[in-house]
Amino acid sequence: MSAITAAEGNPQIEFWFEFASTYSYLAVMRIEAAAQAAGVDVVWKPFLLGPVFLSLGWNDSPFNIYPPKGRYMWRDLARLAARYGLPFRMPSQFPRNGLLAARVALVGVAEGWVAAFSRAAMLASFAEDRDIADDAVIGELLAALGLPAPEVLARAQAAENKQALRAQTERAAEIGLFGAPSFRVGEELFWGNDRLEDALAWARAGP
Amino acid sequence: MSAITAAEGNPQIEFWFEFASTYSYLAVMRIEAAAQAAGVDVVWKPFLLGPVFLSLGWNDSPFNIYPPKGRYMWRDLARLAARYGLPFRMPSQFPRNGLLAARVALVGVAEGWVAAFSRAAMLASFAEDRDIADDAVIGELLAALGLPAPEVLARAQAAENKQALRAQTERAAEIGLFGAPSFRVGEELFWGNDRLEDALAWARAGP
Repeated sequence: MSAITAAEGNPQIEFWFEFASTYSYLAVMRIEAAAQAAGVDVVWKPFLLGPVFLSLGWNDSPFNIYPPKGRYMWRDLARLAARYGLPFRMPSQFPRNGLLAARVALVGVAEGWVAAFSRAAMLASFAEDRDIADDAVIGELLAALGLPAPEVLARAQAAENKQALRAQTERAAEIGLFGAPSFRVGEELFWGNDRLEDALAWARAGP
Repeated sequence: MSAITAAEGNPQIEFWFEFASTYSYLAVMRIEAAAQAAGVDVVWKPFLLGPVFLSLGWNDSPFNIYPPKGRYMWRDLARLAARYGLPFRMPSQFPRNGLLAARVALVGVAEGWVAAFSRAAMLASFAEDRDIADDAVIGELLAALGLPAPEVLARAQAAENKQALRAQTERAAEIGLFGAPSFRVGEELFWGNDRLEDALAWARAGP
């Protein structure tokens, strides 16, 4: 029954995001409501930008490597957060290590709570300046969602889940991703928070 | 009288663009109609991205240096051109040398025909695959606009005009530009063709 529903159901969009990524913050906060309004299902794809950036020759965020881009990005982010009505505080560390949050999010994909967890982790990082690489911080976020934090953290750090995140990150490079957030509809790639609406429209109607 | 009109007239937006830039093509084609509809005056600022990119450590277009970005850009450009109803043919050379076109455009700013010339030069490059670094090509475009091509080309290549373009390019770096097209409203910077509407809204209403 659920297979039939899936086959005949809404069009789908893949949502590739990284917890350290500023524009991923905006997209994580917006995508569920926007996709629901558009009648599109979201397939959440947490991954790590670090290895993708390394393959492009960057050993840091391009926003740090290229200061004019970085200055613009922080201003742009503040402007956009204000427009979307999202809280924003410039993090004291950038980029933050998103590895633990990505591993937990992958568990959340399997268990159905990835959207709520991802919003909580993004708000912790970009609105409350908390270190989401810290087990205790992530544990608090999980508990606040009514989830069994120690069990979830153990599943997140299990070898199989670590390997699944590595594989997903390799897949990101294979399909041509070079930044986050990215949206994928079939073979069509859309890059950037400001392309979320375009990607949803493509999922609904095609070109 | 014109000073009074300017002081009491429409809000203004600076439009910084480069003839070699793919997304500048889209913005050049769109900005006059969009700005008129928004009641905003456009101050055209042709400049050269090359020296700006060199200062960031790039001796080529980032779309060439980072192949995944390049592949995405060409697909994205074709998609956007189709959406806007603009012709597009992938140029046989990229990036093209936009120096001559930028010098001519600067003459056009002073003489009031920059918008029409810039659209003609962009269409030649990105829809007809013509080499806009060629005096003969630019001369044809000028003549088609009813302009005295030899005189305009002489003014474009005069020492004073060359220096004015150098100064404008230096100014671009000073105000923090790192790509094109960029829009500026007071101190507020907006980067990318897809931010044209945001920049116009900011010019009208502020934050």
